[in-house]
Amino acid sequence: MLYIVEMDVNIPETWNEDKLNDYIVREKETSQKWQKSGKWVYLWRVAGQYSNVSVLDVESPDELHTIISSLPLFPYMKIKVKSLCKHPNAVREAMI
Amino acid sequence: MLYIVEMDVNIPETWNEDKLNDYIVREKETSQKWQKSGKWVYLWRVAGQYSNVSVLDVESPDELHTIISSLPLFPYMKIKVKSLCKHPNAVREAMI
Amino acid sequence: MLYIVEMDVNIPETWNEDKLNDYIVREKETSQKWQKSGKWVYLWRVAGQYSNVSVLDVESPDELHTIISSLPLFPYMKIKVKSLCKHPNAVREAMI
Amino acid sequence: MLYIVEMDVNIPETWNEDKLNDYIVREKETSQKWQKSGKWVYLWRVAGQYSNVSVLDVESPDELHTIISSLPLFPYMKIKVKSLCKHPNAVREAMI
Amino acid sequence: MLYIVEMDVNIPETWNEDKLNDYIVREKETSQKWQKSGKWVYLWRVAGQYSNVSVLDVESPDELHTIISSLPLFPYMKIKVKSLCKHPNAVREAMI
Amino acid sequence: MLYIVEMDVNIPETWNEDKLNDYIVREKETSQKWQKSGKWVYLWRVAGQYSNVSVLDVESPDELHTIISSLPLFPYMKIKVKSLCKHPNAVREAMI
Amino acid sequence: MLYIVEMDVNIPETWNEDKLNDYIVREKETSQKWQKSGKWVYLWRVAGQYSNVSVLDVESPDELHTIISSLPLFPYMKIKVKSLCKHPNAVREAMI
Amino acid sequence: MLYIVEMDVNIPETWNEDKLNDYIVREKETSQKWQKSGKWVYLWRVAGQYSNVSVLDVESPDELHTIISSLPLFPYMKIKVKSLCKHPNAVREAMI
Amino acid sequence: MLYIVEMDVNIPETWNEDKLNDYIVREKETSQKWQKSGKWVYLWRVAGQYSNVSVLDVESPDELHTIISSLPLFPYMKIKVKSLCKHPNAVREAMI
Amino acid sequence: MLYIVEMDVNIPETWNEDKLNDYIVREKETSQKWQKSGKWVYLWRVAGQYSNVSVLDVESPDELHTIISSLPLFPYMKIKVKSLCKHPNAVREAMI
Repeated sequence: MLYIVEMDVNIPETWNEDKLNDYIVREKETSQKWQKSGKWVYLWRVAGQYSNVSVLDVESPDELHTIISSLPLFPYMKIKVKSLCKHPNAVREAMI
Repeated sequence: MLYIVEMDVNIPETWNEDKLNDYIVREKETSQKWQKSGKWVYLWRVAGQYSNVSVLDVESPDELHTIISSLPLFPYMKIKVKSLCKHPNAVREAMI
Repeated sequence: MLYIVEMDVNIPETWNEDKLNDYIVREKETSQKWQKSGKWVYLWRVAGQYSNVSVLDVESPDELHTIISSLPLFPYMKIKVKSLCKHPNAVREAMI
Repeated sequence: MLYIVEMDVNIPETWNEDKLNDYIVREKETSQKWQKSGKWVYLWRVAGQYSNVSVLDVESPDELHTIISSLPLFPYMKIKVKSLCKHPNAVREAMI
Repeated sequence: MLYIVEMDVNIPETWNEDKLNDYIVREKETSQKWQKSGKWVYLWRVAGQYSNVSVLDVESPDELHTIISSLPLFPYMKIKVKSLCKHPNAVREAMI
Repeated sequence: MLYIVEMDVNIPETWNEDKLNDYIVREKETSQKWQKSGKWVYLWRVAGQYSNVSVLDVESPDELHTIISSLPLFPYMKIKVKSLCKHPNAVREAMI
Repeated sequence: MLYIVEMDVNIPETWNEDKLNDYIVREKETSQKWQKSGKWVYLWRVAGQYSNVSVLDVESPDELHTIISSLPLFPYMKIKVKSLCKHPNAVREAMI
Repeated sequence: MLYIVEMDVNIPETWNEDKLNDYIVREKETSQKWQKSGKWVYLWRVAGQYSNVSVLDVESPDELHTIISSLPLFPYMKIKVKSLCKHPNAVREAMI
Repeated sequence: MLYIVEMDVNIPETWNEDKLNDYIVREKETSQKWQKSGKWVYLWRVAGQYSNVSVLDVESPDELHTIISSLPLFPYMKIKVKSLCKHPNAVREAMI
Repeated sequence: MLYIVEMDVNIPETWNEDKLNDYIVREKETSQKWQKSGKWVYLWRVAGQYSNVSVLDVESPDELHTIISSLPLFPYMKIKVKSLCKHPNAVREAMI
C-alpha cells in the first residue's frame, strides 16, 4: 500500500554544528537503508524549502510508522501523511 | 522537471446529474490523454477523499499549466503545486 | 487496517426538503449496510455539530475509498482521514 | 460519556536523552494505568506522526481532565477534544 | 455538565425575505423554549458579528446535541463546542 | 460590559519546577483576587486542555486589560477576546 | 469606547446589477448617517481589496452592534472586531 | 511605489459560458490597458493554478485601488496585497 | 499615505527581568519619538492581549519600514500591515 | 524559468549580537553574489515586516534550491515558493 509523506525539518536552534552534522549523517544512512529496501520509493526535495516529499510502498500502516519514526530527525519534523489508492482515471496498471 | 500537484474537486451544487456525468467523462479523456503522453506520470486517489495527488514530468512551468488548465473541472478545483528537485539523500539516479 | 474518518456535512442551500430527505434516507441505508458488514466499526456524532467521527476496519485503502465514496452525501462533505497503527503504550492486544 | 482526543507531542529541544527517557517511561505507566481502569478505551498511533488518537469513556468532563492532565507530557502536547454522542444512523446499540 | 458553544450564522444567499423571516421567528421560539427550560443558561451576541456565544448546562452530550440540532438554522451555522470542567483556581463553588 | 476570554497557557520549556510552581501560586492569587472582586465572573477549565474560558464583567476595555495583564502568566498565554452584547432572542433580563 | 472593525464584503453571485446597486446605495446612506453622528470615526478602504477598516467610538458594545448590524450588507460580510484601550506608550491624551 | 498583488479567481458556478467569455474578454482589455500605461509592470500566471501574481508601480494606494477594482472580475477574486520597499541587500539601484 | 499595522509581541522566554525592562524602556522611547514626529498617529492596545494596533501616516513604504524596524522589539513581533486608501462612502475629507 | 519566493526570517532568540551580525554580513554577501549573477532578479523588502519577496530566473528547480539553500539564514526562514509561467493576458513579450 502506498503513502505520500511530506516532512518539514525544524532544526533546534540550540544545536551546534557538530551535533547537526552528526544528525545529518545518520539521517542519510537511515533514509538510504530504507530506499535500498525498496519500501521508500521516492525521496524528492521541495525546491527552495527545507522540506521533502516521499512516496513509500509498505505492507501496513505499522511498517510505515516503523520507517518514518526510525529517522533521527523524526522528533524535529512536522509530518503530513496521505494514504493513497487507485484512481478510476489512472491509465497505469501498477500503482508505482 | 517534476511537479507534485494536489487537486480537490468541488462539484457545483447546482449541476444536475447529466451535466456532472458529461464533465466526468471529459475529465477522464483529458487526464488519460496526458497520462498516455508520458507527461502525467502518476495519478493517485487520496483514500476516502474527493482529491487526487499527481506527479507530472514536464518541459516547463508553461507546459504544466497547459496540462492542468486543460482539465474540464479546472475552474472547480482547489489546486496546490510543488516544484520538486533532487534530494541529496536520494539513492535513485533518475527522478522518476 | 484501521482508519479514523471525520466527515462535516454541507447541505447545498438550493435543495428543497424532499431532495434533502431522499438523501438522508439513502445515506442511512448505505451507512448501515457497511456497519452491518463489520467494516464500519463505529459511527459517532460530534455533540452539537453536523459532523461525525467514524472508525473503519478495512482490507486496504481502496476498500476504504469504496465505502466512503458510496455515501450519497460524499460530494457534499469535507472529509479528513487518518491511518492508524499500534501505539507502543497500548495495553489492548487487538486494535479494536 | 465518550470523548475522542488527539494529542501531538512536542518534545522540548533542550531535554537530554535521560530526561526524555524518564518522561517516556512515566508517560507509559500513567497511560497504561488508565487503560487498565477501562476508562481509556483505545490508544492508537497516527501512522507516520508523533501523534495519537484516543477514545475515553468517562463519568464527567472533570474525570476526562483528571486523566489527560495526569500525563507527564501534558504540558508539552497540543490537544484537541471532541465530545461524542449517539449518531442517528448508528446500528450498534452501545457507544463502544 | 457545562458546554460553551459558538455559532456563526450563514444565511443562504438564495433565500428571499419571507423565508428568512420565517426562519428567524422559529429560531427565536426554539431558542427561548430551551432557555426557559433552564438548560440554555446564557445566550450572548458577539458585538458587531452575526455570531453568538452560549453556555448550556445539560445532562449529557446527547442532550446538548438534541438542543442545538433542534434550531431551524442548525444546518446553516458553523458551530464550535467546548466541554467545560471545574478550574482549580475557581473561587465559586457552583459551575454557574 | 461583558467579555469572554480564552487563554491557552504555554509554559516555557526552560523553567524548572520551582519557577513553575512559583508562577502557579501567584497566578492563583491574582486570579482569585479578581474573582472575589466580582469582576471576573466565571473561570472554567476546557476539559482535557491547558486552556480556560472566562467571563468578565468590567467597567471598560481598560479595566479588562488591567485585569488580564496583571496575571503573572500573561506573557506566556495566547489570548482571544470577544466583546459581548445583548442577544435579541435572550430571555434573561440581565446579561449575567 | 473604541473598536476597530474589519469588514470583507462577499457579494452573492446570484444578485443582478439592479439588486447590487440598490444595496450599494443603501449601504452608503447607512454608513454616512453613522459617520455624521460622530460614532463611526474613520472608514478606510484596504488598497486593492473589497474590504474596509473602520474605527468606531461608541457608548457600549450594544451600540456597536446596532450600528454594524444596520448595514444592509451586514449578512454578506465577514467581520472582525477588536476592542481597544489605552496603550502605556501612547503620547496622545485622547484615544482619537 | 511598488505593490505585489496575488489574485485567485473564483468563477461563480451559476455563470453560463457566454457570460464567462464576456467577462474574460473584458478582463483582458482592462488588464492590458493598465499594462500598456506602464503602471501594471508584471502579470504572471502561477503554474497549474487559476491565480496570478502581479507587480504594480503606482503613484499612491488610491491609484492601486483604482486599477485593481476596475477589473470586471474584481468582486470574484480573493486578493492579497503587499506594499514593497527597498531591501538593504539589494544590488539593483532601481526598484524595477 | 496611511498604513494600519498590528503588532503581536513574543517576549523570548530566556530573557531575564533586567533585559526585558531594558527593552521595554527603549521600546517606549522609540515609539514616542515617532509619535511626537506626527508620523505615528495612533497607538492603541488591543484590550486583554499583548498586541497593539497603530495608524501611521508616512511619506513612503520605505519610511514606514524605517519606523517599524527601528523598534527594539521588531525582531520579536509578528507584524501585519495594511495599506489604506480613501473609501468611496467616507464622509470625512481628510484621511485622518 | 521564473520563481517568486517569500522568506520570513526568524532569528533564534539565543543568538547574541555578534553571532547575529556575522550571519547578517554573510547573508548579504551570498545574496549579492547571486543578484550579480543575474539569477536573483529582484529582492524587495515587505514594508514593515522582517520578510522579503524575491524573483529568481533560473535554469531548473535544482538551481533554485542551490541558490536559496546557500543562504546562511536558510534554516531559520519560513519560505514559500511559487513557480510562474506566462499569463495569457500579459502584454510584455519577455517574462522579466
